[in-house]
Amino acid sequence: MSPVTATLLRHRLRHLRHQIRLNSTSVSPPPPHFNLPLNHPTYLIWSANTSLGKTLVSTGIAASFLLQQPSSSPPAAHSTKLLYLKPIQTGFPTDSDSRFVFSKLDSLSLRRRIPLSISNSVLRSSLPVAESMRRSLKVSESGMCDLNFSEEKTVTGAPELLCKTLYAWDAAISPHLAAEREHATVEDSVVLKMVEQEMECGSQTNVLCLVETAGGVASPGPSGTLQCDLYRPFRLPGILVGDGRLGGISGTISAYESLKLRGYDVAAVVFEDHGLVNEVPLNSYLRNKVPVLVLPPVPKDPSDDLIEWFVESDGVFKALKEVMVSVYLERVERLNGMAKQAGEVFWWPFTQHKLVPEDNVTVIDSRCGENFSIYKASGDNSITQQFDACASWWTQGPDPAFQAELAREMGYTAARFGHIMFPENVYEPALKCAELLLDGVGKGWASRVYFSDNGSTAIEISLKMAFRKFCVDHETLLSLSEDAEEKKHVDVKVLALRGSYHGDTLGAMEAQAPSPYTGFLQQPWYTGRGLFLDPPTVFISNGAWNLSLPESFPQTASEESGTFTTRDEIFDKSRDTSTLATIYSASVSEQLQEYSESSQSAHVGALIIEPVIHGAGGMHMVDPLFQRVLVNECRNRKIPVIFDEVFTGFWRLGVETTADLLGCKPDIACFAKLLTGGMIPLAVTLATDAVFDSFSGDSKLKALLHGHSYSAHAMGCATAAKAIEWFKDPETNHNIDSQRGTLRELWDEELVLQISSHCAVERVVVLGTLFALELKFLMLSSLYASLYAKSLLEMLREDGIFTRPLGNVVYLMSGPCTSPEICHRLLAKLLKRLGEFNRA
Amino acid sequence: MSPVTATLLRHRLRHLRHQIRLNSTSVSPPPPHFNLPLNHPTYLIWSANTSLGKTLVSTGIAASFLLQQPSSSPPAAHSTKLLYLKPIQTGFPTDSDSRFVFSKLDSLSLRRRIPLSISNSVLRSSLPVAESMRRSLKVSESGMCDLNFSEEKTVTGAPELLCKTLYAWDAAISPHLAAEREHATVEDSVVLKMVEQEMECGSQTNVLCLVETAGGVASPGPSGTLQCDLYRPFRLPGILVGDGRLGGISGTISAYESLKLRGYDVAAVVFEDHGLVNEVPLNSYLRNKVPVLVLPPVPKDPSDDLIEWFVESDGVFKALKEVMVSVYLERVERLNGMAKQAGEVFWWPFTQHKLVPEDNVTVIDSRCGENFSIYKASGDNSITQQFDACASWWTQGPDPAFQAELAREMGYTAARFGHIMFPENVYEPALKCAELLLDGVGKGWASRVYFSDNGSTAIEISLKMAFRKFCVDHETLLSLSEDAEEKKHVDVKVLALRGSYHGDTLGAMEAQAPSPYTGFLQQPWYTGRGLFLDPPTVFISNGAWNLSLPESFPQTASEESGTFTTRDEIFDKSRDTSTLATIYSASVSEQLQEYSESSQSAHVGALIIEPVIHGAGGMHMVDPLFQRVLVNECRNRKIPVIFDEVFTGFWRLGVETTADLLGCKPDIACFAKLLTGGMIPLAVTLATDAVFDSFSGDSKLKALLHGHSYSAHAMGCATAAKAIEWFKDPETNHNIDSQRGTLRELWDEELVLQISSHCAVERVVVLGTLFALELKFLMLSSLYASLYAKSLLEMLREDGIFTRPLGNVVYLMSGPCTSPEICHRLLAKLLKRLGEFNRA
Repeated sequence: MSPVTATLLRHRLRHLRHQIRLNSTSVSPPPPHFNLPLNHPTYLIWSANTSLGKTLVSTGIAASFLLQQPSSSPPAAHSTKLLYLKPIQTGFPTDSDSRFVFSKLDSLSLRRRIPLSISNSVLRSSLPVAESMRRSLKVSESGMCDLNFSEEKTVTGAPELLCKTLYAWDAAISPHLAAEREHATVEDSVVLKMVEQEMECGSQTNVLCLVETAGGVASPGPSGTLQCDLYRPFRLPGILVGDGRLGGISGTISAYESLKLRGYDVAAVVFEDHGLVNEVPLNSYLRNKVPVLVLPPVPKDPSDDLIEWFVESDGVFKALKEVMVSVYLERVERLNGMAKQAGEVFWWPFTQHKLVPEDNVTVIDSRCGENFSIYKASGDNSITQQFDACASWWTQGPDPAFQAELAREMGYTAARFGHIMFPENVYEPALKCAELLLDGVGKGWASRVYFSDNGSTAIEISLKMAFRKFCVDHETLLSLSEDAEEKKHVDVKVLALRGSYHGDTLGAMEAQAPSPYTGFLQQPWYTGRGLFLDPPTVFISNGAWNLSLPESFPQTASEESGTFTTRDEIFDKSRDTSTLATIYSASVSEQLQEYSESSQSAHVGALIIEPVIHGAGGMHMVDPLFQRVLVNECRNRKIPVIFDEVFTGFWRLGVETTADLLGCKPDIACFAKLLTGGMIPLAVTLATDAVFDSFSGDSKLKALLHGHSYSAHAMGCATAAKAIEWFKDPETNHNIDSQRGTLRELWDEELVLQISSHCAVERVVVLGTLFALELKFLMLSSLYASLYAKSLLEMLREDGIFTRPLGNVVYLMSGPCTSPEICHRLLAKLLKRLGEFNRA
Repeated sequence: MSPVTATLLRHRLRHLRHQIRLNSTSVSPPPPHFNLPLNHPTYLIWSANTSLGKTLVSTGIAASFLLQQPSSSPPAAHSTKLLYLKPIQTGFPTDSDSRFVFSKLDSLSLRRRIPLSISNSVLRSSLPVAESMRRSLKVSESGMCDLNFSEEKTVTGAPELLCKTLYAWDAAISPHLAAEREHATVEDSVVLKMVEQEMECGSQTNVLCLVETAGGVASPGPSGTLQCDLYRPFRLPGILVGDGRLGGISGTISAYESLKLRGYDVAAVVFEDHGLVNEVPLNSYLRNKVPVLVLPPVPKDPSDDLIEWFVESDGVFKALKEVMVSVYLERVERLNGMAKQAGEVFWWPFTQHKLVPEDNVTVIDSRCGENFSIYKASGDNSITQQFDACASWWTQGPDPAFQAELAREMGYTAARFGHIMFPENVYEPALKCAELLLDGVGKGWASRVYFSDNGSTAIEISLKMAFRKFCVDHETLLSLSEDAEEKKHVDVKVLALRGSYHGDTLGAMEAQAPSPYTGFLQQPWYTGRGLFLDPPTVFISNGAWNLSLPESFPQTASEESGTFTTRDEIFDKSRDTSTLATIYSASVSEQLQEYSESSQSAHVGALIIEPVIHGAGGMHMVDPLFQRVLVNECRNRKIPVIFDEVFTGFWRLGVETTADLLGCKPDIACFAKLLTGGMIPLAVTLATDAVFDSFSGDSKLKALLHGHSYSAHAMGCATAAKAIEWFKDPETNHNIDSQRGTLRELWDEELVLQISSHCAVERVVVLGTLFALELKFLMLSSLYASLYAKSLLEMLREDGIFTRPLGNVVYLMSGPCTSPEICHRLLAKLLKRLGEFNRA
């Protein structure tokens, strides 16, 4: 390296860093709708480093599985088969792990005098490989050739060994370099699809499948994606080949941690003995939960064919095989029992248990980004994939890459901070989170952040803030004296919209209009402490956006309702000067006036709204003009304004804050759900300086005496900080339209309009990550309609879309990073199913 | 390996695993009250594996720091000094990294003609080392000798290099093996203390300190503790020496992840070039946040003195040094600004901001187990340690080993599950958590688990459950019809104890008696929907346990009050047949009777109590006999019983559930706080089958329609499952008394009694992890008393104990795993300070 000044060098480094971008930050997207057989064990063979003997281990397992003495073999009816896959092979054909397994098993079979059918094949390769094998083949666009090399020895009725190399490169270097140099790349999703296809062994019993990785656990695959990320969607259990040398304890533990940090399970650690008793600290670290097995030293003489070593190692491999089988059986047994067990111990929210038979319970083995991996016990056991279109109940954000990043962040935060009590303290995640909030969703109005645990608590806090501010501003009106008892006759209420929802704790419930959810048998203490107005709504039906005014509006107003050409028109601020705006304003004034005349002691002390969309109330889009008028009317009366952005905030509706859609600012706003990227509970209530000041004084009793032990917990704050940054950065969220600062349109307009014109569809609402449709009641009873919704949902689940009805409303929800292509696919499936359904 | 059957082998393995227990599962306890200087940068030099050139990197950094041309050197007034520490050295004296740095800097100083004062010393060693160096020394108990070898070359006024090896062993193997073989061990805390002492460089400026680790990041230290765990309490920033070879990407990434997973920050990754451009995938993985620097290939010729290589590498080391300095400066700048920034953006709960000057804000850099690492800006910048005696506001549980384990578990859970919506679904963490709860705190009575996010929401849910059960059981009494409107006249209330606290959301507040926290200006909707009874309390004063009856009790009852010989006596069930029990029973009956006569429509629909200790109410211990009587009286009247164990549950009071202390079971119980080991929010409401059944029916509207988006979030459930198992297992929690199934006594009885006899102390309550004392008001005003408390707390913070008053109550809270020795030390300091305080 030529001598350059340090500053220059740093500049160069920075420059360089911008230039070089590989795939490894993005975890590979899974192939759509995969189906992994679970009727036999499948293991990934990982290694802490290169050259630690992964293939020796695969060979040993294969031998102990296939070459059993008849006495211990299973009944003859059960064919025995081992499938060995090497998806990625470099240094080929000099190095061919599948050939190694093939040839060693051949030798061992001869030596033990146990017949074996064996085969080895290499499916695709780079051109240099094909050339070196003297084959002239057609090269595909990606630079890959269909090599289709194979060799085999068949013995009828004997146990079978199938060895397959899926992709081979010539250079003995890391796959991402080989792929680059040999101009032969392969996409992650193609590798996965290929692995999935090859793993399919039908319903044969006594099958074992091994998938051997290349290099170390975090070595890049051909696209540059780290292998531990590449294979993550399948989340196959693993065997980790550790390092028995000096320094090998560290490498083995770190590799193990990299696997765990990606959600993998490791069934056993196995390594070659180098006389350093590395198994002692490894066992200690693993707390004896994962067995550690030690293989005898491998002969260093290159002429040694290792057959003696395999014989010597037989006991260890038998033990390893037993561990693999028992871990597999335990997993399947557990998965089989979970639905029943869940029905016996859980008390699910919003669920009438009597109506949930065991078959209806979904057993979820894991999630990878937007997709669930679901266990299907029916038919052949398998793990299938479903897109989580409930976006895990409106909280979920991460794509696979972001989930992996968050996992690292959360591990780090737990280790660095654990939890730290908040009052009068400061620690990095809480401060950073607060700064990002005030510079983002609170920009231009908020100056304080109050942390709590969920939307409902954030709302309770916002009400306490608003009422205090109101009381301070209206001291004379309320004739508040120092004597708390005298204040009892003052009745402070909220102004809210019918159909809005703010949470399930009593204070949040009181701010909602009466509904079946607030009945006496649900919460006998509920009274409904508010003035509840009927809002005008907008929606798409028959291919156009419509406005619908509530019946309470004067007859004359109905002339103003009608259709909009585009959604943007609805949000256009020019509507502020329309006749409709005047009608809205008059209607609000009148109702406020009536209310205050009807009671001397009741005062409207706060306005609370869900901006733009009423979520739990049925995915209704409220006319934003009406909400803006409402805010202005309240502001004129010094009534504090609360935006409940628990559902709507953080990109759910395509913008970071819906205040931007509405075109006006609140005094107080609540956020939760997507705030942490959909990982763990955290909520914030943001407030202006003026609201904060109404709690300032010389006495602690004047302070806001509300809090939760986990206020501003480090884990939540760190995740939130990460999510806020990730979602709004065009580098990490490809959906961000940098110029407008909004999400690009995720739902195909053409499909949306088609669906809205469907005869079974009453209305459609589409905004940001949300697509919702309400099914028509038609002439059916409400019960029948919800059954109708239910069977539609069942069909969608068959298509790999996990949905759950909200009454008569069917919705699809993506994460803020989900690609429009995926959304398109969801919508197309929905349209198709609606069509079929209609015919039925 | 001799051929054994697989089964036998597995047995042997299992057996072996039980025998071998090393230190590495336990993270080392930090030396008490450390103080790390922050007036100059200090870095740990880590490596992804052995032999990757850690010492070359240390040497290069030293050269670029010390051997600057005068033009670029700082003003003469600033002395320049580099301290190189090698705490653990094996293979000595053949391998001596401190000697290598020393001798290379000597050569480089000569070559560059820049004078340098250099020294190298080796402080302690094993006997074989001492013998090989022909020294006869006294061997300490641990087998260590004070070697005190040193060599130096002094040049007055020149920059200084101090190289020190702290502990040396002869064998060139892992330190834990060398320590064992050479019978020379050293405890983790001793290593840390030694490192801390050596790092102290006074107030000199322009100092850089390097601490070079041995082997890989997770290589065991001499005690067997992994080095990344060993050094964790200091959490020094690190430089990671990566691996440029084939497979090195994986090893480097995994090592990096192991460091992050322990809460470390890594300032830069540096590695030797092997022509494989490993920096590209590494940069991509690190998302360009951590610089990756590449060193030229190291000459392989053993006769090469590497001087030319150092010259060639100068630019890279200068860049590395600059990164180290700028990362350090950014950190200190951030730490310096945090207190002010916090005061401007946070809205702390329960805090009158006007009374919190910037100086009172505690800046917390991290936590390690029970200890905070606190940044002190006053005087010399430093990081000091304080025991978190608020147990992070009553939630905190982990010791350092458990925190590390939880961090791994949370990283895994985030990666495997993220968050999954709960209704009608099942996934492993939620199921496992529910099973452990029903088999633990719910054993013998509960059959259903309802998840929510915090204590307050768990209470709201419990009230909804209890009221429904009550309504179903008393249908006739309440004359409930199907018409919900008609039910409005029925007024369902709670029975609760004065001074109990159940949360800050409105529903939970309504179950509490009026207090300054429930006033109109805090929550104008609060009315206090209950019958609130005054409870008898017990406490220690003047060396004895006393019973105090409320004034509302009849005169005759006071004869029954008095003292107890032991705390066990208070919990003795034989008291059930005492006169006092009869008095209690009569009192409760009478008050219930009076209440029901006073109102036709009001019905007591639930009993809610905090068993044994009223936490937020002032750490009052309620006579358990009274609570037991109360429960029985309610049961006789078919009033559902709720135990609010949010504060008291999960070992806070020395038992997993306080139902065991009380000797009776509830119908419903709430848990939160320690449930997750004090990591993240999660709450559960447990219920009996009978309660669950009262929500069963054919209509969804009869179901419990309360829920939160993060209900049963995987992260919380996984953490809780881990914590439940960890705290109750004597293998992991050494405080568990296996026979009794309780925690052993943590607080020294003698000290407790002394404190209770102190003239400034009104009363003491001690149970489980809790020690609390109330200061006497004396003749002082309440304001004065709280100042008194405050200055006591300031003194305790100087002693390394972080406390925060609860009004006039000073408490110390440990985790369930905190050793009695630590608790003893805390108590002794408190007693000492009380004494001093009194004299003042």
